[in-house]
Amino acid sequence: MTGESTKLPAVILAAGEGLRLQNGANDKPKPLASLLGLNLLERSILTCCQAGIDEFIVVVGYRKDELIPQIDELREKCGLSIKVVENPNWQAGNGTSVAACAPHLSGPFLLLMCDHLFEPEILHDLVAADDGSDVCLLGVDRRIGDLFDPGDATMVRLEGAAITAIGKGLDNPDAADTGFFLCRPLLFPALEKSRRTGDGSLSGGIRQLSGNGEIQAVDVSGRFWHDIDTLKAFEAGVDGLLERLKTAKRIDGPISRHINRFFSIKITRRLARYAISPNQISVVSTLFGLLGAGCFFGAGVIASWHSLWIWGLMGLAGLLIQISSIFDGVDGEIARLKYQTSPYGAYLDYMLDRYVDGLTVMGMVYASYMLSGSFIIVLVGFMAVFGLPLSSIHRAKFLAEAKRNYLNEDDGLLRYLPYSRDVRLFAVFLGGILNKVDLAIYFLALVPNLVALLRLHAVKKAMAK
Amino acid sequence: MTGESTKLPAVILAAGEGLRLQNGANDKPKPLASLLGLNLLERSILTCCQAGIDEFIVVVGYRKDELIPQIDELREKCGLSIKVVENPNWQAGNGTSVAACAPHLSGPFLLLMCDHLFEPEILHDLVAADDGSDVCLLGVDRRIGDLFDPGDATMVRLEGAAITAIGKGLDNPDAADTGFFLCRPLLFPALEKSRRTGDGSLSGGIRQLSGNGEIQAVDVSGRFWHDIDTLKAFEAGVDGLLERLKTAKRIDGPISRHINRFFSIKITRRLARYAISPNQISVVSTLFGLLGAGCFFGAGVIASWHSLWIWGLMGLAGLLIQISSIFDGVDGEIARLKYQTSPYGAYLDYMLDRYVDGLTVMGMVYASYMLSGSFIIVLVGFMAVFGLPLSSIHRAKFLAEAKRNYLNEDDGLLRYLPYSRDVRLFAVFLGGILNKVDLAIYFLALVPNLVALLRLHAVKKAMAK
Repeated sequence: MTGESTKLPAVILAAGEGLRLQNGANDKPKPLASLLGLNLLERSILTCCQAGIDEFIVVVGYRKDELIPQIDELREKCGLSIKVVENPNWQAGNGTSVAACAPHLSGPFLLLMCDHLFEPEILHDLVAADDGSDVCLLGVDRRIGDLFDPGDATMVRLEGAAITAIGKGLDNPDAADTGFFLCRPLLFPALEKSRRTGDGSLSGGIRQLSGNGEIQAVDVSGRFWHDIDTLKAFEAGVDGLLERLKTAKRIDGPISRHINRFFSIKITRRLARYAISPNQISVVSTLFGLLGAGCFFGAGVIASWHSLWIWGLMGLAGLLIQISSIFDGVDGEIARLKYQTSPYGAYLDYMLDRYVDGLTVMGMVYASYMLSGSFIIVLVGFMAVFGLPLSSIHRAKFLAEAKRNYLNEDDGLLRYLPYSRDVRLFAVFLGGILNKVDLAIYFLALVPNLVALLRLHAVKKAMAK
Repeated sequence: MTGESTKLPAVILAAGEGLRLQNGANDKPKPLASLLGLNLLERSILTCCQAGIDEFIVVVGYRKDELIPQIDELREKCGLSIKVVENPNWQAGNGTSVAACAPHLSGPFLLLMCDHLFEPEILHDLVAADDGSDVCLLGVDRRIGDLFDPGDATMVRLEGAAITAIGKGLDNPDAADTGFFLCRPLLFPALEKSRRTGDGSLSGGIRQLSGNGEIQAVDVSGRFWHDIDTLKAFEAGVDGLLERLKTAKRIDGPISRHINRFFSIKITRRLARYAISPNQISVVSTLFGLLGAGCFFGAGVIASWHSLWIWGLMGLAGLLIQISSIFDGVDGEIARLKYQTSPYGAYLDYMLDRYVDGLTVMGMVYASYMLSGSFIIVLVGFMAVFGLPLSSIHRAKFLAEAKRNYLNEDDGLLRYLPYSRDVRLFAVFLGGILNKVDLAIYFLALVPNLVALLRLHAVKKAMAK
């Protein structure tokens, strides 16, 4: 995301009744319906912030007295410029809500609905497609077959980029209206014209523009967006946001991707609604890790007991480490879901992870030494502790010297040698529950040092690029 | 250094005889006189490269047949654009050498003498002072009293930035002519005019410009530059370049600054003239380090011998580690002196250092354990190995998250707790020669972990900035 270029104000429509969602047990006005720990309006605004937007106009109407204090709170909490525009005629159609903003807008602006979930890239797409000419842009999605509720969606017909028809139940539609616009003040007279013919909807205004060739489509097919009209759509939206966590660009190791995410997303789904911060989850993950390390030390202390006790404690230790590894994914997931990522949070999480890793290996070495009496495992353990940060160190130094990130692809065949943290902790888990702690120590000692050595040549090649 | 903005071509004068230096034992033409491993012409060109310049015109005359093959070699080796201009009239004055370049120059260019040592910032100063108006700029130095040979220097008198007089033996001079110019083609008619009056020197041309207010001074007082005219000046230039290594901006720890540099610069002075690459020195440093680590291990192996043997071996180990630490400075010094810094070299050096550090601590722990039989020192040793990369890790993660470097000042009072590599290795040295290896291990275990813990608060504050 480039972020900084998207410096348009965003108009968010939150004036409607949202009748179909209201039929549910939820007693709040729709914009305040809470979804994975954020209400819909808050989520819309914070998603816009991710796209670099910091100036908002929120149009309220239905149950505005409940909305306004929430907006005031959000404005203060996030330090954003949020103007509230009241539309007493909200029942006359959402076009009147847009029209109510006319006095505050003299240039291009983004326009979206507060009941739409979306990824910030959609706004980037709109801004990138804008060439400055005096037309409005509408994000459209050609994946009509994949729509959650195609019968309810507003559709468009296209000729090239031009939108030639718009409406619900349109015959032979080419794409769906996503509800994300980049508009210009020429929209306001079009809305007025439509209203005078008796159609106070935004679609009515767009239809007027389409007659003049003043509305163009921007293809955002493939981006995540989701219109929440019904309780069922609400649940599907939750699923959609959680699903995105899996595909969000991160350096996820194979164990994270194929095992941990399965559990962590289930945990995230349950925890997101509570006011638990990502940093608190980091601490929970750390505690599980320290408990695991402690159990390994404990196994060393009871080295003279019956082996069943020792096996049991080792297995518990491995399990705790794996739980810690899973929770290590949850903090990041919650942070991204609730837009609570913070540099300090990421720093703290990372440094705590280092201590969990180090103490875990020390605990394993202690247990292994007490059980076997062989000093060799201690020396191997030193190589393991030494190897833990090697990959981080390598990446950091590469970045500092080559002024770019070291990519997985730079590793050549080496990239198939797994040694990310999720894999390391999984080796500890297996070592614990299979009572093969010494093998886990050998794995931790050999793989990162071998990789660092073999990587020297790959680094040379990558730096010459 | 911004580098990229300095995209002017540079004209380097290498046509003169350099008679006074020739009186020495040196048999080569002056531009090829070797100084700390690079000949003067090579050094001029490479220093310009540091300032971002990649297009050169070298004017040759005296003994040009010896110079041209060297220039050809340099062109190929460094992939630079170097044009050779021959000035058959070089004996008529250095102004004729500049004039010989006229056909090749249509815009502004930098002009310098191949027998001047300098830091690239002088060229940045000239470029930064250029406002595009049609005048020439001359770098001047007001520290007349500090000049190596003031009697021989060309001096200027100034009125504001305007140069009102120029010449050797000038009365009441305001500053010295450094010999670094930013010129424009208007210089060529001025040179011609001066030549017609019988003065073929560059100073003659500049004097013509000064009459028209077309030459202005740029104050570069405080920058390093050094004119090599005599053998004595040659020796002083060597000292000057070596002295600069101490003040070059680097994160130097206190032991590096106050102890290691004293030795490393002496070594660098001796080694620079040979074709030894910085990477080779890194390997030497690593070998000393590995030998030191090996001696610590050895002390553990002979734990049952007479304590004098053990003390001796420990002392030798400490000494070897300190020598390794000193050589760890030499590679960087030579790289900077000979413009041989390379990202891969820095990466390799850094990764090798990590292994020396890790193996050294392991050797110390092994010796200490074999001598005392206490497993406590092993656990403390684990914390020491764990602590070694903590500061690097912290810096790298801070940079990744906060998108800026973590500064010493960010540390508050913590910055007075020394824990850089030079200090760590010095602790190992002291531990070895004083036979207090266990204390050194405690130091290495406690300080970095303590710093990492105390730093959490400082990082939070620094990130909030």
